[in-house]
Amino acid sequence: MAENLAKSARKASNILKTLSNDKRTSALKVIHDSLRDSKDEIIEANKLDLKLAEEADLPDSLIRRLDLAKGDKYDSMLQGILDVAALEDPVGRISLSRHLDDGLDLYRVSCPVGVLLVIFEARPEVIANITALAIKSGNAAILKGGKESLHTFSAMATAVKKALAKTSIPPDAIHLVSTREQVGELLHQDKYIDLVIPRGSNELVRQIKASTRIAVLGHADGICSIYVHDDADGEMAGKIIVDSKVNYPAGCNAVETVLINKNLLSTSNPAGQAKVTSIIEQLVDAKVKVKIAPEIEAFLTSGDNSSPSTIAIPCPQIEPATEADFDREFLSLTIAIKSITDIDEAIAHINEHGSHHTDAIITASKDKAEKFLKGVDSAGVFWNASTRFADGFRFGFGTEVGVSTNKLHARGPVGLEGLMSYQYQIKGSGQIVGDYAGSGGSKRYLHQDFTVDNN
Amino acid sequence: MAENLAKSARKASNILKTLSNDKRTSALKVIHDSLRDSKDEIIEANKLDLKLAEEADLPDSLIRRLDLAKGDKYDSMLQGILDVAALEDPVGRISLSRHLDDGLDLYRVSCPVGVLLVIFEARPEVIANITALAIKSGNAAILKGGKESLHTFSAMATAVKKALAKTSIPPDAIHLVSTREQVGELLHQDKYIDLVIPRGSNELVRQIKASTRIAVLGHADGICSIYVHDDADGEMAGKIIVDSKVNYPAGCNAVETVLINKNLLSTSNPAGQAKVTSIIEQLVDAKVKVKIAPEIEAFLTSGDNSSPSTIAIPCPQIEPATEADFDREFLSLTIAIKSITDIDEAIAHINEHGSHHTDAIITASKDKAEKFLKGVDSAGVFWNASTRFADGFRFGFGTEVGVSTNKLHARGPVGLEGLMSYQYQIKGSGQIVGDYAGSGGSKRYLHQDFTVDNN
Repeated sequence: MAENLAKSARKASNILKTLSNDKRTSALKVIHDSLRDSKDEIIEANKLDLKLAEEADLPDSLIRRLDLAKGDKYDSMLQGILDVAALEDPVGRISLSRHLDDGLDLYRVSCPVGVLLVIFEARPEVIANITALAIKSGNAAILKGGKESLHTFSAMATAVKKALAKTSIPPDAIHLVSTREQVGELLHQDKYIDLVIPRGSNELVRQIKASTRIAVLGHADGICSIYVHDDADGEMAGKIIVDSKVNYPAGCNAVETVLINKNLLSTSNPAGQAKVTSIIEQLVDAKVKVKIAPEIEAFLTSGDNSSPSTIAIPCPQIEPATEADFDREFLSLTIAIKSITDIDEAIAHINEHGSHHTDAIITASKDKAEKFLKGVDSAGVFWNASTRFADGFRFGFGTEVGVSTNKLHARGPVGLEGLMSYQYQIKGSGQIVGDYAGSGGSKRYLHQDFTVDNN
Repeated sequence: MAENLAKSARKASNILKTLSNDKRTSALKVIHDSLRDSKDEIIEANKLDLKLAEEADLPDSLIRRLDLAKGDKYDSMLQGILDVAALEDPVGRISLSRHLDDGLDLYRVSCPVGVLLVIFEARPEVIANITALAIKSGNAAILKGGKESLHTFSAMATAVKKALAKTSIPPDAIHLVSTREQVGELLHQDKYIDLVIPRGSNELVRQIKASTRIAVLGHADGICSIYVHDDADGEMAGKIIVDSKVNYPAGCNAVETVLINKNLLSTSNPAGQAKVTSIIEQLVDAKVKVKIAPEIEAFLTSGDNSSPSTIAIPCPQIEPATEADFDREFLSLTIAIKSITDIDEAIAHINEHGSHHTDAIITASKDKAEKFLKGVDSAGVFWNASTRFADGFRFGFGTEVGVSTNKLHARGPVGLEGLMSYQYQIKGSGQIVGDYAGSGGSKRYLHQDFTVDNN
């Protein structure tokens, strides 16, 4: 059954990918109108889900995510569909054009990946968002929502299906699946599904990654680090670390580990000591729990610290860090701090203990920064900026499909491009390879690139 | 043990990727010289492998691939290293540069994928080729050769290791592994290995794909099709089909299936009938065994065929095709021909029965061609050209790492680019997201692209 479903999506995707941008874009407007017109029924269904969730005593954070009527969430969702519709067509963009010979031209042309499987938890607005992204990019999509949002999901699915029936999108291009059992089977349909996109907790991503051979666009962990070099501006370091931790502690791009160059702790470097004290003070002021390695504790408590601190030790917000704290994503207002010898050790620590998401260096030295940016094996490598900038909207991608820690295909914040593949087209006039040198003939290839206008 | 090996390669890769192009390129020259100076020992070892292979009665084709002394193979191998050294540096190329704000710039910069696992069969020259590609692209590589080339492999490995010791390449960046047992374990090191590249038979690729979660760059099958539309130039169609089959029948880009528009078989279309007859005649003349579907057989044998054929039926080179013949890669001078109703059916047939490698349409119509190129879900989609053009060297890529039928990361013939990932760099001056709209502040992003010179 999962196989038939995936196969029908594949067939539909082969039609969808040939439709013009006009047809795909106008379908999004029809979906927008349908979801707008069905708002009352959908909010009604959403209330039922909320009631059941409260009765089942589900966590507040989940209930907040589930609630579609909250603030302008519904209208933002509707606007999001129009925003995606207005994006530049990602299909058919030419990234290489080359004369192989007279009348024999090679093009590399963007095309949809094919079939997406999107698995999400409580947020019902993902249905609208992913449906829009899939259709805009010419991909078929199978959407599987969480059981908490079952009634909302059904009401929205009805509205989307009704809308699709009025467009030229093949009906099997968007499948809305609500039973839990099918996920396991769908994850085995690597013949028909090209990409899995999990939208939910790290635990969900980890489970999915462990149970499929299909490529997964996402990240299970966000263990981001900031390395403070000994020439760092202390005020800048504190400000960036606090922002990276406090702005949204549950974000995957929040910082978890701070590495302090050990020169900053030296008694012969009172200015350095003042920087470290100030960083810790700023974190404490920002209500962050600071887990400190033994050498930081020694620094804070011993008379070697020349910098008078306003932190009274013992401080309830400061506690010793364990080794394991430097492999943890706290997802809360907690941070771990240790010192390291030099930039090489910082790079090595991050490559071994980080999750290859986003890491930053604070330094006044361009050379040190370049070394760090080249040496750290992460999707985002930042110099003198908050790790929280790792985000598709902040990067100006128009939309964000997810953040990937994969090194192949899409890495980092992923826009619509992450749903695209490419094909090599040749437009010839009867040429055969047997006429060319190396394959039996004597003709030579031109290999002359030319420019095409993508607009 | 495989884990330690992979881990050491990962550590080495984190150093290798920071080395300058000069260092990587000059290392290739040292390897070149070492292999040149060790030619006598290596050829001696190769003779021993050849002797053992002959004694073991291994197939001629394998022995030919194994023989390093044949013709100019050794010198070509040496030249290949210098050719790779001369390629443009693929590391550090900037494909996006954007002002997020004043003094806050975003760059997308190419970087090595990390660690490659390359598994190959008889061809010992792959050692030199892959070592060169890996070092040039800043990737660590674990090379595993076939048991048939064990002595050659050892002699070459000694020369390569000796050379590497004189360079700034970390010694663990290139591992040469010759025991069979390790492959299975290495395929499980997805924590440390980023990409598997099999160089060998379809069977090898299939086995590897089935036993690893690591991305595999390659293709198990090459079931390429050519669709002859009813307005095709008959002479062109025959010439392209013969070249696509005969130029190198064992190639993955050789054609296996020919789909003939059924209008060409109609009694009311004598010109069309003549085209079909001519195509089959040209194939028979080129010594191809032609497997024909029932409707083609009916056409050839019935009085309905208005085109007088020189083919005497029964012809020993013509035989009935089974259904299964249209899902087969013959890898020999055999081809299967059937008729289909129209271009939609051709596209659907290819998407279902092909291997998404390379498929071609022969037609005089630009519209039909565009429809085919858009609708066929393969790495290569060609119009009026031989499927054999699907090749990195013919595409002008300078080198070919493999041909991929994956839709993610690299697709089609893959040059050095296929060994590259990218990172997002931000160069800031202390910015935090909390100052920007949407995250608590009021500053606006500029999102203003600028140009950087990659040379």
